[in-house]
Amino acid sequence: MNASTQATEIRLASRPHGWPTLDNFSIVDTDVPSPGAGQVLVRNQVLSVDPYMRGRMSDAKSYAAPYEVGKVMYDGGALGEVVESRADALEPGDLVTHRAGWRTHSVLDADKVVKIDPEAAPPTAYLSVLGMTGLTAYAGLLESAEFKPGDTVFVSGAAGAVGSVVGQLAKLRGAKRVIGSAGSPAKVRHLVDDLGFDAAFNYQDGPVTEQLRAAAPDGIDVYFDNVGGEHLEAAIDSINLHGRIAVCGMISQYNATEPTPAPRNLSQIIAKRFTMRGMLVTDHFHLRDRFFAEVAPLVADGRLKYSETVVEGGIRKTPQAFLDLLAGANTGKMLVRIAD
Amino acid sequence: MNASTQATEIRLASRPHGWPTLDNFSIVDTDVPSPGAGQVLVRNQVLSVDPYMRGRMSDAKSYAAPYEVGKVMYDGGALGEVVESRADALEPGDLVTHRAGWRTHSVLDADKVVKIDPEAAPPTAYLSVLGMTGLTAYAGLLESAEFKPGDTVFVSGAAGAVGSVVGQLAKLRGAKRVIGSAGSPAKVRHLVDDLGFDAAFNYQDGPVTEQLRAAAPDGIDVYFDNVGGEHLEAAIDSINLHGRIAVCGMISQYNATEPTPAPRNLSQIIAKRFTMRGMLVTDHFHLRDRFFAEVAPLVADGRLKYSETVVEGGIRKTPQAFLDLLAGANTGKMLVRIAD
Repeated sequence: MNASTQATEIRLASRPHGWPTLDNFSIVDTDVPSPGAGQVLVRNQVLSVDPYMRGRMSDAKSYAAPYEVGKVMYDGGALGEVVESRADALEPGDLVTHRAGWRTHSVLDADKVVKIDPEAAPPTAYLSVLGMTGLTAYAGLLESAEFKPGDTVFVSGAAGAVGSVVGQLAKLRGAKRVIGSAGSPAKVRHLVDDLGFDAAFNYQDGPVTEQLRAAAPDGIDVYFDNVGGEHLEAAIDSINLHGRIAVCGMISQYNATEPTPAPRNLSQIIAKRFTMRGMLVTDHFHLRDRFFAEVAPLVADGRLKYSETVVEGGIRKTPQAFLDLLAGANTGKMLVRIAD
Repeated sequence: MNASTQATEIRLASRPHGWPTLDNFSIVDTDVPSPGAGQVLVRNQVLSVDPYMRGRMSDAKSYAAPYEVGKVMYDGGALGEVVESRADALEPGDLVTHRAGWRTHSVLDADKVVKIDPEAAPPTAYLSVLGMTGLTAYAGLLESAEFKPGDTVFVSGAAGAVGSVVGQLAKLRGAKRVIGSAGSPAKVRHLVDDLGFDAAFNYQDGPVTEQLRAAAPDGIDVYFDNVGGEHLEAAIDSINLHGRIAVCGMISQYNATEPTPAPRNLSQIIAKRFTMRGMLVTDHFHLRDRFFAEVAPLVADGRLKYSETVVEGGIRKTPQAFLDLLAGANTGKMLVRIAD
């Protein structure tokens, strides 16, 4: 390393009340650390910004490990190049992914990084469709929602990194009908024209319940929830007997300052005997090999499409990219390129 | 049959808005019918009144078969004596249970009645702890809530026919701790002193969330919901990672005229990854033999206690008994004796 190289990291400066702002983050220059025995130094190229990070910024007791005020935004997906190695299995030039969050350089134990094959797929795919977001979609659909061929599937946030994979996987695995909701006309067109959804609607065009009823006249069997709130209420309204709801995210509620009282129709759970299950990808790592074996070929031959919204301009753009993500500015996975 | 015998039945006169009243029912004298080939005539002795019947009185689309206005309150559990048989397997004097509802006499196909053994248990037990209510508790605890030994279990409506069996079964099957809520000091004492609950509280004494936190300092793994509303919110607050909620009833909401907005903390489903599942006993009939084999001996030797609140005075008392049930006047199963 050049002695003059500096590392930079983004820290949580304060916990947000409602929507986060740039003031909740601080950008701090630090020294580039040196790896110890069995460790590597990774120079990060691409950082991931994800909706779940909003949850970690709060210190609600229910979240196991909130981000700490004054500390780096850890954990978060990142892609980088090994620049110094004191571990046998890795050498300089290797591309790796890891979870060490929003910083330019990371020192990590070798078992905390995953070496990727840039020939098998573009490196950024390992942060999205072949990474945690893809696994979230796969595990949520198959395990949490117990999807089976013939099901009609509704997914909210369908143009997002997780939702777009959920819908396509459901189609590829024999769904009867796949319906998505998104927040702009362009996203709705993308779902139907590019990703093969059978129907899609813009939730800003009218009541979600009415739009879903129209899109799913025979009801839905599976709802993959990225949004919560009005969408969840609509899904309960349309769900068929013994339906299943996987709750992956409730982005509509992350920035609420008061508890949100929806869904008002939850008591239908008895008559319809549906199952609702919360999910976090960390419970499903046992599926990783199966997921990769099934999904990597689908990505490679273009049957499963994915989108990225890549923000250029260095690590200092990361907080704004995250705020834009929460406001829905992305199509597909939101990434920040911080170095080549 | 004596030619002068008259049958009487209770019909749904109108659908209630909010709490039902006696005006929602009509009491109608009819002729005693004659059984056809393969049928029996049953003279009913005891009728069951149950919380789910309130749901059937509404015509919400979600309920498969609401009671019809102008028709008898069908279905509902009943116990009676065969007085005329044109079926091979049954003869006059046999005691049977069936689902033909609120009437003094029922003509039924032989396969719609279940002959009971009055030596194995008191006949009314077949309408409660050994009948649908017992099976509801058994299936809801074991299948819907996936109970396992070592779980801490919370049950609401714990002094009721279903709840009292849930709590006792959980203890008998190795629960770490069983907590119940009920609506009077006498019921709370009954749970702890007679039924072996580890803790119980009167939900009218203060916020359910606070009382549950105090009763379950290490959280709960299973919540068996008979009540909904504030109780469900409290259970979500106290539920542990990967907990399970079986929603059997939401009696607090059955008479609400506006949608009830609780639980406000549902978004915790993601961080805690709990599962919530609606249940109706009709989905679990495959468990009947296993249930009876396990529970009948527990009832016979007194390890599993059950209570009945038996209203005397004939079929005309049935609507009032039902209203009293909804108001919580019962301990254990609420029954109406209409004949000896």
